[in-house]
Amino acid sequence: MGFYMAKNLISKSPNDMIVYDINKEATKRFSQIELEKTSDSGSKNARIRVANNLAELAESSDYIITMLPESAHVKSAYLGENGLLSKLKPGTVCIDSSTIDTDVSVQISSTIIENGGIPLDAPVSGGVMGAEAATLTFMVGSRNSSEFENAKSILELMGSKVIHCGDLGAGQTVKICNNMLLGSAMIATAEAMALGTKLGVDPKLLATVINSSSGRCWSSEVSNPCPDVLPNAPSSRDYSGGFATKLMLKDMNLSLNAAKSQKIPLFLASLSTQIYGHACAENELANKDFSSVYKWINKK
Amino acid sequence: MGFYMAKNLISKSPNDMIVYDINKEATKRFSQIELEKTSDSGSKNARIRVANNLAELAESSDYIITMLPESAHVKSAYLGENGLLSKLKPGTVCIDSSTIDTDVSVQISSTIIENGGIPLDAPVSGGVMGAEAATLTFMVGSRNSSEFENAKSILELMGSKVIHCGDLGAGQTVKICNNMLLGSAMIATAEAMALGTKLGVDPKLLATVINSSSGRCWSSEVSNPCPDVLPNAPSSRDYSGGFATKLMLKDMNLSLNAAKSQKIPLFLASLSTQIYGHACAENELANKDFSSVYKWINKK
Amino acid sequence: MGFYMAKNLISKSPNDMIVYDINKEATKRFSQIELEKTSDSGSKNARIRVANNLAELAESSDYIITMLPESAHVKSAYLGENGLLSKLKPGTVCIDSSTIDTDVSVQISSTIIENGGIPLDAPVSGGVMGAEAATLTFMVGSRNSSEFENAKSILELMGSKVIHCGDLGAGQTVKICNNMLLGSAMIATAEAMALGTKLGVDPKLLATVINSSSGRCWSSEVSNPCPDVLPNAPSSRDYSGGFATKLMLKDMNLSLNAAKSQKIPLFLASLSTQIYGHACAENELANKDFSSVYKWINKK
Amino acid sequence: MGFYMAKNLISKSPNDMIVYDINKEATKRFSQIELEKTSDSGSKNARIRVANNLAELAESSDYIITMLPESAHVKSAYLGENGLLSKLKPGTVCIDSSTIDTDVSVQISSTIIENGGIPLDAPVSGGVMGAEAATLTFMVGSRNSSEFENAKSILELMGSKVIHCGDLGAGQTVKICNNMLLGSAMIATAEAMALGTKLGVDPKLLATVINSSSGRCWSSEVSNPCPDVLPNAPSSRDYSGGFATKLMLKDMNLSLNAAKSQKIPLFLASLSTQIYGHACAENELANKDFSSVYKWINKK
Repeated sequence: MGFYMAKNLISKSPNDMIVYDINKEATKRFSQIELEKTSDSGSKNARIRVANNLAELAESSDYIITMLPESAHVKSAYLGENGLLSKLKPGTVCIDSSTIDTDVSVQISSTIIENGGIPLDAPVSGGVMGAEAATLTFMVGSRNSSEFENAKSILELMGSKVIHCGDLGAGQTVKICNNMLLGSAMIATAEAMALGTKLGVDPKLLATVINSSSGRCWSSEVSNPCPDVLPNAPSSRDYSGGFATKLMLKDMNLSLNAAKSQKIPLFLASLSTQIYGHACAENELANKDFSSVYKWINKK
Repeated sequence: MGFYMAKNLISKSPNDMIVYDINKEATKRFSQIELEKTSDSGSKNARIRVANNLAELAESSDYIITMLPESAHVKSAYLGENGLLSKLKPGTVCIDSSTIDTDVSVQISSTIIENGGIPLDAPVSGGVMGAEAATLTFMVGSRNSSEFENAKSILELMGSKVIHCGDLGAGQTVKICNNMLLGSAMIATAEAMALGTKLGVDPKLLATVINSSSGRCWSSEVSNPCPDVLPNAPSSRDYSGGFATKLMLKDMNLSLNAAKSQKIPLFLASLSTQIYGHACAENELANKDFSSVYKWINKK
Repeated sequence: MGFYMAKNLISKSPNDMIVYDINKEATKRFSQIELEKTSDSGSKNARIRVANNLAELAESSDYIITMLPESAHVKSAYLGENGLLSKLKPGTVCIDSSTIDTDVSVQISSTIIENGGIPLDAPVSGGVMGAEAATLTFMVGSRNSSEFENAKSILELMGSKVIHCGDLGAGQTVKICNNMLLGSAMIATAEAMALGTKLGVDPKLLATVINSSSGRCWSSEVSNPCPDVLPNAPSSRDYSGGFATKLMLKDMNLSLNAAKSQKIPLFLASLSTQIYGHACAENELANKDFSSVYKWINKK
Repeated sequence: MGFYMAKNLISKSPNDMIVYDINKEATKRFSQIELEKTSDSGSKNARIRVANNLAELAESSDYIITMLPESAHVKSAYLGENGLLSKLKPGTVCIDSSTIDTDVSVQISSTIIENGGIPLDAPVSGGVMGAEAATLTFMVGSRNSSEFENAKSILELMGSKVIHCGDLGAGQTVKICNNMLLGSAMIATAEAMALGTKLGVDPKLLATVINSSSGRCWSSEVSNPCPDVLPNAPSSRDYSGGFATKLMLKDMNLSLNAAKSQKIPLFLASLSTQIYGHACAENELANKDFSSVYKWINKK
């Protein structure tokens, strides 16, 4: 996702860009952007530079955007040896678009503040397709509206919606609440589609009635888990593409972590987490779209 | 609900109507329809008649519509002493709009056929408000499309959508699949709203983001369980009105019953059923809208 | 099981026996008992007779013992055409050792009373091995202690414990409460053994500590689900023998049925039922001992 | 608990003791031990000393035993400013009897090793009563058997069983596996007792049958959650004493944390955790024995 976000950013922004990825293969793809750009406009050639480490990147940046898999990676990127904070310029805007633990996010934000930076948490929804099409939604936590507006001017180059969700951490909170609801609703949809189909109802008709009634949800309308109900849904291409079950499992666990300190019981989310966890024990399902939980339910 | 359905039916149809309710109070309300009608048009006065028992009603009817709380009541209405089948005229169309066990429905339908009648199962969604406004959705199971079309001409007088879901029993199946999904999605929504709010996010903003994202569902958009997010939702009037938790519990149990013989695992629906059951142990929640499960989660 | 129970009964009782099984193969085995008996004592040869139907059996019996898989079979045996009640002699003691729905059991018992018989529900624990060794436990529901004592004199020939649990139906209730608890405790044990082992603790040592501490239960001490902890447990012979997962699933469902009318929430039992149901979707696990749920958890 | 453990230790050991508690009230109780001792034997008077901070305590100790509520407290005690490690003497045996996250325990143990100490994790079971009576069970993780034997000579003064569970962390693992199993088995027992009782069976009889059958577990035999089944169980004194629900909740969460990194699905433990969490929302239940989950189930 980071690659597409960077590509949109450099295309739409007049500014130079320095990129870094711990995986050298990923940085090679960035050189290809350069080449493409060159053919468009000779002058863009020099605008993307690959940094040798994050300290070097921080040293020359006014805006930093991180997009990483887990809490530990974000911690390491900011706080590690030769990390971003080791050379952060005062006033640098630090936008973290990773989906990570709310409390880790808040804690890194404070450290950024202590180091003179301006933190924002800005996790995204919309997936790889949204990243490519620059139609991501950014859910943003920020100390105040002027810092939010400043960051928004950058984020808008990569997404179609940029929402100020509240104080630092609020972007993470909104993101995980949405995904937690989605995770349970998908299983609930899969159960309903599996039961109705097994009882002899045509799945397309079942989906149509549900979608015009109170069972309607994103999982029934946009990504129905029953194959061949929606031709463009992952379920109709053997659950390839989409949002991997193991990533949904990760997000469900973030929700449970967040709830623990708040003493909010999450009966359904807990059970859904266990179900995605059990499904992920099969490698095949772990890497397929999370609507493949339909196969787990229908395992015969 | 039966009262409003009957009221719409007599208002829009040229035919006479015979009504019966085991509860005499309910039949009194039917006399009031008569009176209202009289004031509209003197000739309608004689068009509604209260039967002394179901046999008497069956004897003079070409179309019979039943709307009853549970499987046992429908069995008793059709198969009991002085029940509908004891005097059914050949070719009578028997429409059952109750939400009951699919297999009981199918079994009663066979007995109706053996007695020369034409059965259809036609449970509704839309609630009391839909019944009053004649905007119900009828989910219909029927042997064939001509019998369906015939019944549809009657059902259209009471609802805005009449959908042929498949063979006998399919109406019940589609109804319970929808409600089962709804039951779990409502709890999932309540969990997400409770967690986000507890973590400090404004509930209206949270709902807005969810509704424009993949967490979107009927429970987040139309009947959000968090008070004051949607002014017209039951949650904003202390969960009064709407669809009682105890009725949702009943429908969830119908789903579990249907699944048992089909060997479809329903992890989420089972847990949701337990949650509604536990909530119903508090009389207050049992009779409030099922979105009051939000209070159960937030019990402090 | 019925075969071994019958074998013990005829061996220890001076009375004649009439047997019936819908499956003709099963009755062949009874002829083999006859032959064995013949070699012991010529006079026993004539003591076992195979009936052509249940009516014929009832006609000549003072005590009837039924041992059948499900509610429907017991209903059919007593109430069906040529069933036991069609020719029941007044005063016949009717002992049903099947594990079935409590309310079906109570209802059949009333019909037996109406037909002049003396009903008792007497489900067993102890399995095939207990049946063979005459060490079954009978959990008995009976109207009063004299009827209980009378039946006990027969049941003692087949088991080592005969317990009066209360009024009609109480035998079923106690049986399903025990098995419901067992069903959940087995999964809980499997989770604990799987987690500890995965974290590097020696499973035998883990079981030893648990068994001398508060985690101790039948599933940890007598039938530990982790292979090679107990050499004689089903888990140590690839879960063969023992109590099949599909039978545990059946008993769990009986508990849920019983709870429904009582409004007792059964969160754990409901989830355990779903787990056994999901495990049973794999034919292999369905027929193995229910401690094979350990494999379901550890599916890798 | 720490108080009783210290009291037994000083009574049975010839060595001096330095004590510390962040709560000054707790250290006052230690002075009372001194006084008692004085009356026994004048020479013991000087044997207990209260330290001003943990560094001071470490400076003069050959054996350190910590007993703290949560991971954060143990971290702080060892790693905090003026903490134990700031003045640890080489070769000091550091026994942590707290029940905390396995991975935190292992991590603190490594830091102890880096600082020249000898770590052991030795959580206990047996509760306050076991601490008082010196009948605790210590589940010990240790690098090797000589270090284990050395620590055992101390631990034996406070408990009746000291078990070497494996490498560092293994004590924690065994403890949480046991308690996780206990947590689910207690709820399963409560469900069975509640259902049987509601269906009319005498609870004492039900418990007796279960205890002689396969439902048998510590929760049915030693601490039956149904009041008045066992006169000495917490349930028979309105759930006072025993092991508080909020502590069980804490231990269940430790299990879920441990499982997360191991990818072991824990369906029942997760649900049980939610149930204890929901019960703890009622202050009354949070502080009562965890068998009060019976009240949560029977809430009407």
